[in-house]
Amino acid sequence: MKRDIDVLVSEVGPRDGLQSIQTIFTTEGKMDWIRREAAAGVRQMQVGSFVNPKLLPQMADSAEVVGQSVLIEGLIVSALVPNMKGAVNGLAAGAHQIGVVMSVSEAHNQANIRRTVQESLNGFAEIVKYRDDNPEYRDRVISGGMATSFGCTISGAVPLKDVMRVAEGLVQRGADRLNVADTVGYANPKQVRDLFTELYRTIGTDIPVGAHFHDTRGLGLANVFAALDAGVREFDSCLGGLGGCPYAPGASGNIVTEDLVFMLEAQGMRTGVDLDGLLEAREIMERQLKGEPVHGTYINAGPPKGFTPATAAA
Amino acid sequence: MKRDIDVLVSEVGPRDGLQSIQTIFTTEGKMDWIRREAAAGVRQMQVGSFVNPKLLPQMADSAEVVGQSVLIEGLIVSALVPNMKGAVNGLAAGAHQIGVVMSVSEAHNQANIRRTVQESLNGFAEIVKYRDDNPEYRDRVISGGMATSFGCTISGAVPLKDVMRVAEGLVQRGADRLNVADTVGYANPKQVRDLFTELYRTIGTDIPVGAHFHDTRGLGLANVFAALDAGVREFDSCLGGLGGCPYAPGASGNIVTEDLVFMLEAQGMRTGVDLDGLLEAREIMERQLKGEPVHGTYINAGPPKGFTPATAAA
Repeated sequence: MKRDIDVLVSEVGPRDGLQSIQTIFTTEGKMDWIRREAAAGVRQMQVGSFVNPKLLPQMADSAEVVGQSVLIEGLIVSALVPNMKGAVNGLAAGAHQIGVVMSVSEAHNQANIRRTVQESLNGFAEIVKYRDDNPEYRDRVISGGMATSFGCTISGAVPLKDVMRVAEGLVQRGADRLNVADTVGYANPKQVRDLFTELYRTIGTDIPVGAHFHDTRGLGLANVFAALDAGVREFDSCLGGLGGCPYAPGASGNIVTEDLVFMLEAQGMRTGVDLDGLLEAREIMERQLKGEPVHGTYINAGPPKGFTPATAAA
Repeated sequence: MKRDIDVLVSEVGPRDGLQSIQTIFTTEGKMDWIRREAAAGVRQMQVGSFVNPKLLPQMADSAEVVGQSVLIEGLIVSALVPNMKGAVNGLAAGAHQIGVVMSVSEAHNQANIRRTVQESLNGFAEIVKYRDDNPEYRDRVISGGMATSFGCTISGAVPLKDVMRVAEGLVQRGADRLNVADTVGYANPKQVRDLFTELYRTIGTDIPVGAHFHDTRGLGLANVFAALDAGVREFDSCLGGLGGCPYAPGASGNIVTEDLVFMLEAQGMRTGVDLDGLLEAREIMERQLKGEPVHGTYINAGPPKGFTPATAAA
């Protein structure tokens, strides 16, 4: 992480937000959003997903979006992939970071990508090997995504030891970083602090670890605070909380980028992000929606009187 | 606090929620709500406010509501008062607890109750003396309410030393407990943990301290988590987040009771409250609204699969 920020805010809206709604953004529309948000100071974005376009037509232009996004100065461009084919395509498109997704929960992993956890770990090793075998990809980052780390809609509670086993498995297979995800919005802040504390105890602190929270039960930002306590300094979020949760109508999905940035900046933690610029990016995003709800509080409440963001004060 | 719960959830909807909306509930309607919520296990409620009924017609029946509420087995009935006249009426009505409100911010205190902070402290001492001079009120609890402890819409940041000065002033004048309020939704979790840590350092841990958070900027439950860390074990909240914030259209007001209970129970902290019962009480409350929005996430998302509340497990 660059030294001039304290916390890395990683926008996942162009992937996680868009894949959860009906409206299909044009490539140009996505790029307008991505460019404006990058200009507001967001330094990492997950801009697409290399999956079967028949299953997720919203992501069909991911190669094009990645290709244009990597031209944006200073932006770390990430893409989600479920398997080797996706990784090959994502790397070829130029993504700086490949997020390989698997679930800690066996039942969820089977339902989602039709593999056992062990098969997914083996597949991860192959992707790392593919990157390593191709010198032109030397600088690309392979991130191990750990879905359902805090609970599973199919099997309920997910044992902490299963989370640690998958984390160790990913690190042993060459993960450059981990992304620990509350895919289904089950986490509570005590659990979050305990899990990340145990995680750093298990894998050490050399591997960067990001957290991915959903706000399904209103605990998203409480979970961020708890994760900060444990030492996490990278968070996924989505502008306007776009996307929601398919399991909970009316509930929001990813934590809201602008609310996250407000919280961090209010706590004196520099994100490098300008809140006004973020709201402009949100407007660009919102204009393209066809009735899908957006979420968030900062958009309505604005800053407290006399508020000075840490980034501006620095 | 009773030994069979870990955290006291204090419902303030019949006061803070209702005073912020247009609809005037009938006394019977308020009591239906209060009785159902008490039956769900909520042990403390602020059911009214002894203020000029011309200014707050929603609260005109507070004496009647207090009188009926104190007949509910096991319920601690609280009422808000701005001055001696309110305290006299609140005590006469039978309230177990009188919350005397003042602002830490001079500007806010002047705007709200037309007194200096010093005058408010003097007035607080007189109320305590009145209680002490009347032996029939011996068991009544006088709570010192500290509004704008985390910031002020008029003067912006509120210095920590001002908060400590008011807290000490209230304790010296005989406060049985304190209620530290983020009246305007300015608090962030770091600030919350720092403030309560300093507060306990200043006044010790013999005096019970409650926290009153608004969710104006989405940080309400994060602030609860931070306050729990500092040792706070009593929280105000409002069923359905009724009331909103007059300064921020669309923003929610008090933190949402059912979301608060969910978070605490998920963290293994017993509240004594049954979530299903709480949703029934919410329905009774909601039926009486005339279009006013309600808030919350638990109502949409429900419990995680396999969820066992701490209260039920105990």
